[in-house]
Amino acid sequence: MNSLSTIDQLVEALRCLPGVGPKTAQRMVMHLLERDRDGARNLAANLNSAMEKIRHCQKCRNFTEHDVCHICTSTTRDVSTLCIVENPGDVIAIEQTGHYQGRYFVLMGTLSPIDGIGPKEIGMDELMARCNEEVEEVILALSSSVEGEATSHYISELVKLKNIRVSRIAQGIPLGSELEYVDGGTLTHALNGRKII
Amino acid sequence: MNSLSTIDQLVEALRCLPGVGPKTAQRMVMHLLERDRDGARNLAANLNSAMEKIRHCQKCRNFTEHDVCHICTSTTRDVSTLCIVENPGDVIAIEQTGHYQGRYFVLMGTLSPIDGIGPKEIGMDELMARCNEEVEEVILALSSSVEGEATSHYISELVKLKNIRVSRIAQGIPLGSELEYVDGGTLTHALNGRKII
Repeated sequence: MNSLSTIDQLVEALRCLPGVGPKTAQRMVMHLLERDRDGARNLAANLNSAMEKIRHCQKCRNFTEHDVCHICTSTTRDVSTLCIVENPGDVIAIEQTGHYQGRYFVLMGTLSPIDGIGPKEIGMDELMARCNEEVEEVILALSSSVEGEATSHYISELVKLKNIRVSRIAQGIPLGSELEYVDGGTLTHALNGRKII
Repeated sequence: MNSLSTIDQLVEALRCLPGVGPKTAQRMVMHLLERDRDGARNLAANLNSAMEKIRHCQKCRNFTEHDVCHICTSTTRDVSTLCIVENPGDVIAIEQTGHYQGRYFVLMGTLSPIDGIGPKEIGMDELMARCNEEVEEVILALSSSVEGEATSHYISELVKLKNIRVSRIAQGIPLGSELEYVDGGTLTHALNGRKII
């Protein structure tokens, strides 16, 4: 009916992006309309394409365009190590280090009974099936939130029953940080996890 | 070829949005894929729709879906006042105050010879045609940058030739600001523009 309606709809639609409020969304709309209409059309095409193509890997639940992702199908990766993470973003972060050659299993969340997220929702059936393969060590790389800790504990108990070694990534002070600015919890973990040199 | 390519393309496409870097774009992609695929599809549809429909009003150059925007066609607005702004976003800001009943003219930029933006690019021909109508006062609401000031001066000279009153919006201290934190330039303008009460 008036010129604002289509613009307002786009402003509203942009707010599905995390961290984008009404003011930012409006600035984005104006930028796209004034300076980057091709970019906007390209973004729309990529959004449609990704939402249509991307699904979960049948083996590790990571995002993929195929039935099984490229990490699970790779023949050069170490099949004896399985790293368990919460989200596909964690896989990207670990892959970017270039120092892990094993495979992954993505929970797509953590146990949270209050939200109705139980063992089935975080793929325990698939994980146990996976552990029946050549896996020799399961590395837990979950967050240290209450839910993350509980999920780590739950998984470690199940995996140990299969006589598979379970480890978790080290907690301690991040590289390059000043001791005086590190929080107490982290420092406690760092002290308890000290290594003889 | 691998699962990252489609995701990477979407991350890259999202960077057409202002203020979105690679990390933010990746977070947005993960959020959309994990939690809001409908939102993403809706965003794509709205992007396409807006880029296709939105063009410039033939009378005021503001964004509109029609040949002439709803403000220019409105019969309830004051035709004797014309407010000149730089961008469509400025129109939205002034409209939101609810205290302006006249019409607008949107320059879509400011004079900037170094970037090849001359009088033709900021629509001086359309503006002069507009001034031949019932306009009695032209209000300049451009930014106080060097380019904004130069453009204001240029327009005011042309408009005065047509015996139309020219004004500019007041410069002074913003509402609710502490004097000690207001910059010197603003304070100088506020002192020079003082009013007898």
